[in-house]
Amino acid sequence: MADGRRQGSARSVAVLGAGSWGTTFAKILADAARAAGEQRSIRIWGRRSEVVEQINSSHRNVQYLKDTELPPGITASTDVRDVLAGADLVVLAVPAQSLRLQLREWKELIASDAMVVSLMKGLELGTDARMSEVISDELGIPAERIAVVSGPNLAMEIAREEPTASVVACTDAAAAGWIARSCTAPYFRPYTTADVVGVEIGGIVKNVIALAVGICEGKQMGDNTKASVITRGLAETSRLALALGGEARTMAGLAGLGDLVATCSSPLSRNHTAGRMLGQGLTLEQLAQQMTQTAEGIKSGPAVHELAGKLGVEMPITAAVVAVLAGKLSVDQLGPLLLARDLKPEGDY
Amino acid sequence: MADGRRQGSARSVAVLGAGSWGTTFAKILADAARAAGEQRSIRIWGRRSEVVEQINSSHRNVQYLKDTELPPGITASTDVRDVLAGADLVVLAVPAQSLRLQLREWKELIASDAMVVSLMKGLELGTDARMSEVISDELGIPAERIAVVSGPNLAMEIAREEPTASVVACTDAAAAGWIARSCTAPYFRPYTTADVVGVEIGGIVKNVIALAVGICEGKQMGDNTKASVITRGLAETSRLALALGGEARTMAGLAGLGDLVATCSSPLSRNHTAGRMLGQGLTLEQLAQQMTQTAEGIKSGPAVHELAGKLGVEMPITAAVVAVLAGKLSVDQLGPLLLARDLKPEGDY
Repeated sequence: MADGRRQGSARSVAVLGAGSWGTTFAKILADAARAAGEQRSIRIWGRRSEVVEQINSSHRNVQYLKDTELPPGITASTDVRDVLAGADLVVLAVPAQSLRLQLREWKELIASDAMVVSLMKGLELGTDARMSEVISDELGIPAERIAVVSGPNLAMEIAREEPTASVVACTDAAAAGWIARSCTAPYFRPYTTADVVGVEIGGIVKNVIALAVGICEGKQMGDNTKASVITRGLAETSRLALALGGEARTMAGLAGLGDLVATCSSPLSRNHTAGRMLGQGLTLEQLAQQMTQTAEGIKSGPAVHELAGKLGVEMPITAAVVAVLAGKLSVDQLGPLLLARDLKPEGDY
Repeated sequence: MADGRRQGSARSVAVLGAGSWGTTFAKILADAARAAGEQRSIRIWGRRSEVVEQINSSHRNVQYLKDTELPPGITASTDVRDVLAGADLVVLAVPAQSLRLQLREWKELIASDAMVVSLMKGLELGTDARMSEVISDELGIPAERIAVVSGPNLAMEIAREEPTASVVACTDAAAAGWIARSCTAPYFRPYTTADVVGVEIGGIVKNVIALAVGICEGKQMGDNTKASVITRGLAETSRLALALGGEARTMAGLAGLGDLVATCSSPLSRNHTAGRMLGQGLTLEQLAQQMTQTAEGIKSGPAVHELAGKLGVEMPITAAVVAVLAGKLSVDQLGPLLLARDLKPEGDY
């Protein structure tokens, strides 16, 4: 199977999920085909008919991407059967916590040799499974057909065609290359790696760290503090990734450090924004009312904390954020805790 | 000598240099002594009499630290002999490129068993020497008496007593601990390491990378691009540090990643600001007129590039910044260059 992907790129793509990242990735795939002079059919599945109709009639997804005009080749449908028919590339961009149930519905409709790409950054509550593991469990396909795309990839910026680099992770190098070729657009540059675990863990934990950085910002703490939280946050992320078999250099790369820094710098990040609101004193309920899309870190945080506990990995920032989310720690107590350690050699942290 | 520093902390401190970081570090040392209930004499040497007089008469350094009030125990003088007399801790905070000549004047005045701490982040043009190497060359003292303090340490934030972590590097662990105890204030938390090379290289190259990030910002590029430049910038910094005997974990720590992120996030950073002005189209001359303190990356950049060349270390971002500074590359050409690489595995970068 992988042999068939040593050259060429995707011909027929199903993007499942019409949020900001799913829609933006559809645009990347369309612009990539155009840049390469190739034909490619791209269909988005969305749950809500008004979003689907808007994509078909006006080539826009106003709620998630404001005034970005989508390339003409992209269509949308609420009928997943139509969207999946004939797809050699299936892109998954649904909320992390609903993936498993969705896949049970979709399993029979996905072609037996399709490549499946996860854009999702979450850890499943209850099982502590990464998204690639949920895909493997539910679809029963081999690792060489499952890939993950992640990096410093704020969707709104990519939709505006600002230059962006990213990482395609798949245990099969030929498959990773095939996906990278499929999504190389003038403004989007993918690199490849075999370290699926590292790329996924980087994307999952950065949402939790972004909540911590947001809380610091909401509490008016400065850039010194934020930089320390980012540094120690990446250190605990790396400890978790290594314990699961990921690689240190992935954590120092675009899907680790890069994604964390982009998320923690940008006002466009939902998790960062959610943290800032918590820091300013809003409750989780008030926050849910004000935000249109999920801040995944709020859901994945407890799963990350649980997984770290099982593996005996120390993750003090994650633990503090989870305690804040559970109402066991106030945001006023969080700030000092993040830097409060005894004098010691730095390597021990 | 180091045995004498297994306990206690500095009793008499000379801070040479009355800029923002030197003055702020004097404040840290005074607040640290007060918090520990210890007596400590702290004297700042400054070249300009108006700055010195202001510190003595109104406990302020308005040009560099606006309305921060310095603790009462700090005095200042333009007479370096008075300042150095009896000092068991000598803190150096002068412009990197003038250190060597200054040390030749000061050598005979520094006590034979004093500990010397560098707060400077530069590489000497011509020799490509790090500041600790210049100190060792000129004072002829052993490595165990030379330390470096660095980290995500924007001086203005520390002067406002915002919580900050930092790193004290010295090959002698007892000496590092003695300095760490001397500068542990309620808002300033030092960690220790033996990796002087890594800590210095992190501090030097981040100024060059901050210029690149600033240029991107001046060109209105987004957070995805900036995060990629930071990620790849830390990667090339790490390559240089490793080639010189530094450690990877230092680069992933507060003096590597932490300092880089703080500098590249903050509008308070001179190098970041200088880059932004260049990105907006100002010339180096216009920039020099508008800035009151040196942007060290403009001076150290060519030295870093030269050192990397000697060692055969690839540093594409540094090379591009140096080309911009030399007028050989326009800021319009820089942006695309930073992300323009062929499709390849990420680990190869």
